Amino acid sequence: MTEAATIADAAVAALLAQLGADLVRTGDAIDPRFHHDWADYPATRPKALVLPRTTEDVSAALRICHAHRQGVVTQGGLTGLAGGAHPGPDDVALSLSRMVGIEEVDASSATLTALAGTPLEQLHQAAEAAGFTCGIDLGARGSCTIGGNVATNAGGINVLRYGMTRQNVRGLEVVLADGTVVRSLNKLIKNNTGYDWPQLFIGAEGTLGVVTRVVLALHPPVRSRQTALCAIRDFDAALAILRFLEQEIPGRLLAFEAMWPDFYRFATRTAGISAPLPGDAPLYLLVETSLPDQESLEAPLAVLLERGLLHDAVLAKSEEERRKLWAIREVPAEYARHFRGGSVKFDVGIPLGHMGEAVGTLRDLIDRNWPEATAVFYGHVADSNLHLVLGRLDGAVLPQHEIEDAVYGIVSRFEGSVSAEHGIGRSKKAYLPLSRSPEELGLMRLIKGAIDPLGLLNPGKVL
Amino acid sequence: MTEAATIADAAVAALLAQLGADLVRTGDAIDPRFHHDWADYPATRPKALVLPRTTEDVSAALRICHAHRQGVVTQGGLTGLAGGAHPGPDDVALSLSRMVGIEEVDASSATLTALAGTPLEQLHQAAEAAGFTCGIDLGARGSCTIGGNVATNAGGINVLRYGMTRQNVRGLEVVLADGTVVRSLNKLIKNNTGYDWPQLFIGAEGTLGVVTRVVLALHPPVRSRQTALCAIRDFDAALAILRFLEQEIPGRLLAFEAMWPDFYRFATRTAGISAPLPGDAPLYLLVETSLPDQESLEAPLAVLLERGLLHDAVLAKSEEERRKLWAIREVPAEYARHFRGGSVKFDVGIPLGHMGEAVGTLRDLIDRNWPEATAVFYGHVADSNLHLVLGRLDGAVLPQHEIEDAVYGIVSRFEGSVSAEHGIGRSKKAYLPLSRSPEELGLMRLIKGAIDPLGLLNPGKVL
Repeated sequence: MTEAATIADAAVAALLAQLGADLVRTGDAIDPRFHHDWADYPATRPKALVLPRTTEDVSAALRICHAHRQGVVTQGGLTGLAGGAHPGPDDVALSLSRMVGIEEVDASSATLTALAGTPLEQLHQAAEAAGFTCGIDLGARGSCTIGGNVATNAGGINVLRYGMTRQNVRGLEVVLADGTVVRSLNKLIKNNTGYDWPQLFIGAEGTLGVVTRVVLALHPPVRSRQTALCAIRDFDAALAILRFLEQEIPGRLLAFEAMWPDFYRFATRTAGISAPLPGDAPLYLLVETSLPDQESLEAPLAVLLERGLLHDAVLAKSEEERRKLWAIREVPAEYARHFRGGSVKFDVGIPLGHMGEAVGTLRDLIDRNWPEATAVFYGHVADSNLHLVLGRLDGAVLPQHEIEDAVYGIVSRFEGSVSAEHGIGRSKKAYLPLSRSPEELGLMRLIKGAIDPLGLLNPGKVL
Repeated sequence: MTEAATIADAAVAALLAQLGADLVRTGDAIDPRFHHDWADYPATRPKALVLPRTTEDVSAALRICHAHRQGVVTQGGLTGLAGGAHPGPDDVALSLSRMVGIEEVDASSATLTALAGTPLEQLHQAAEAAGFTCGIDLGARGSCTIGGNVATNAGGINVLRYGMTRQNVRGLEVVLADGTVVRSLNKLIKNNTGYDWPQLFIGAEGTLGVVTRVVLALHPPVRSRQTALCAIRDFDAALAILRFLEQEIPGRLLAFEAMWPDFYRFATRTAGISAPLPGDAPLYLLVETSLPDQESLEAPLAVLLERGLLHDAVLAKSEEERRKLWAIREVPAEYARHFRGGSVKFDVGIPLGHMGEAVGTLRDLIDRNWPEATAVFYGHVADSNLHLVLGRLDGAVLPQHEIEDAVYGIVSRFEGSVSAEHGIGRSKKAYLPLSRSPEELGLMRLIKGAIDPLGLLNPGKVL
């Protein structure tokens, strides 16, 4: 038995002794769904799984692990794409899956308080039942948890309107590595009383503390959605359309998604989704607004057509037509079926002034080096967020690291970010220095060293 | 000569030797305007004043002070009301007043980059010239600087629409206590690459680092303003009106200010501002929107009148009428003239569900204990921000600490915050534990200890 294993066993023994077998699972009693998240890492059984029911359970578990110098990986809905919640074989996994529940919807403050393990979709339902909208939304809403959304500062499809998760958080309860519970269940919009410490835990990917409760700001309800698919000339036109709509219909733009032709053709030809517009345009936009009716979106679109910024557009006239337009944008769910050899996925940020050129440079790079790859470009471009996915339709495997090195190098040259919304986790750790200077990384290590001096929380992730 | 004075002199001597007399002033060469900020503390001459022209100057000055264990207070526009920039006699003051300039307006990213000493009003002009709006606005716009706005997480009159300063910051450059320059001049909306360290420096009131450059997000231009003064029944009606307007005219509400009758009467009788509505209503609202014309605000107001939520309203029909309505809300500029014995000022946060009751409780407290005081209640209530000012029209002095103890005690009972937007600085330090738990304060000290281990930045402030 190695030294590491001895320490590990002592920690697990102490967890079992103090918390009991209902809260602490080992070996085959650990459900395999806790062996991995949505990133492409091999399933790994952690040395133990803790399933707390309360913040006090979380605190007790962390106190024990702290006493035994035992590393802990926190798990929410396990939908992360960067491996941030993927367990190592020497980790204790701490799943918030039993800490589910909306504790309060306060209509006067327009806030909602929930336990961290609550799935995002339950927050949506509670917000809507009280006459509000939850500002955080992403494809994984049925599985992801609000604690995970906070830990990763989740983005998604409505960032344009409501901001990132950070902008939606009013208060947090977190447990530190030594078991200390720190709580600010703040509902106030303005509260300048010392350091706004919850900011540190938002987006820290579980490396500074475990989020156990969240107070979210809610927004006025969205009563109707008007949605259009547009064919346009180039990225400059996309930017001009964005600024025009922000001015003409302020506060009404809900989504502004760009799809380059390879993406559009992948969706409408390879994946067979019906094509509302021909596939020969240089760029497509999916625009969604909260305008009250079709006519009110027709008016600004007519101005854009007249100015030559729009080539063609189709406006959804029913909820069914709206779903059909969105089906194109949601084709990423089909990648696994068509790219049987896997795919190389990117979630990068590019300053909008460089976005058009950056896509051109990346396209050239791929055509030159990996002509056999199908490469699709798309993204929440109003948020400066570009997604790029490469795969082979013949089932062959692409050289992932070679492609990553080349793509991240170009992203860095355009002053971009190697992670826009998915986070660093395990998979982008090596590329973090492309987006952050040595001084920034030094400051991050200083913060990590102060708050988790033994380095026990999510070891090996982010930094 | 005391030990402290010896150390001090060595620091000043080193600053002078390395930076020269143009950048480093001592004794009478320090302009008295650097002896105080807008808080009510006696003017104090710091032992030296450094006037850097560049980030490198700031870095050099801090490196020297660090080597000599010399405390440094950073000064922006000196408009703070909590004494956060007030110098102590043993401090070196570091004024950013020479670091002025807009470095870039990037229309494609909708961002502006400025040096920290740039007055907020210059940012407004630059944003407007490029077809945007700056989201941060407050009365002191002509004097306050963007660096000070960031350091205090300034609030102001448009928080309802654009959020606090924090929500408007995309990137920062800061200098740490040891002179290290940390820079993230980020323009991206989404950038999840490790800890979002700039968040720590926003609102830290100069205790963690010196902000030297700021990248701000800009917003679509406001083309017209429709403004109404409303008389209403009570605070519950104010909340109902707020939620109604947020739903009916989403994204169009710019200001939502409440004024209780004593404030309204102080403005229209004591200060003699013309009264557009009688003075006998239980509560007044000043509502401003970015709707295109008068009619479009008339419509929702008519619905509110019909529902009995509004008793009376007057809608500004010209820019002159609009200014007259705002003149009432801006009467705080007159306090000094009418309260010659000074005033006791509060800037507190109260959860909206408790606001009506909290004002009643505070009013009773004041009537019972200080019946001779004129007490006015008003505030940016949509942001859960209440201002309360007490003064005596006969020029007598009120017992400040006694009143503060009583008022902050009630604020704390209603789960409020002892500082909504002005910050803690020096004047509210003793009350911080009313709004923050021992665990929160412990975490703040941990952060301070990691980033400024010698405690040199803004000594004696906040914590």
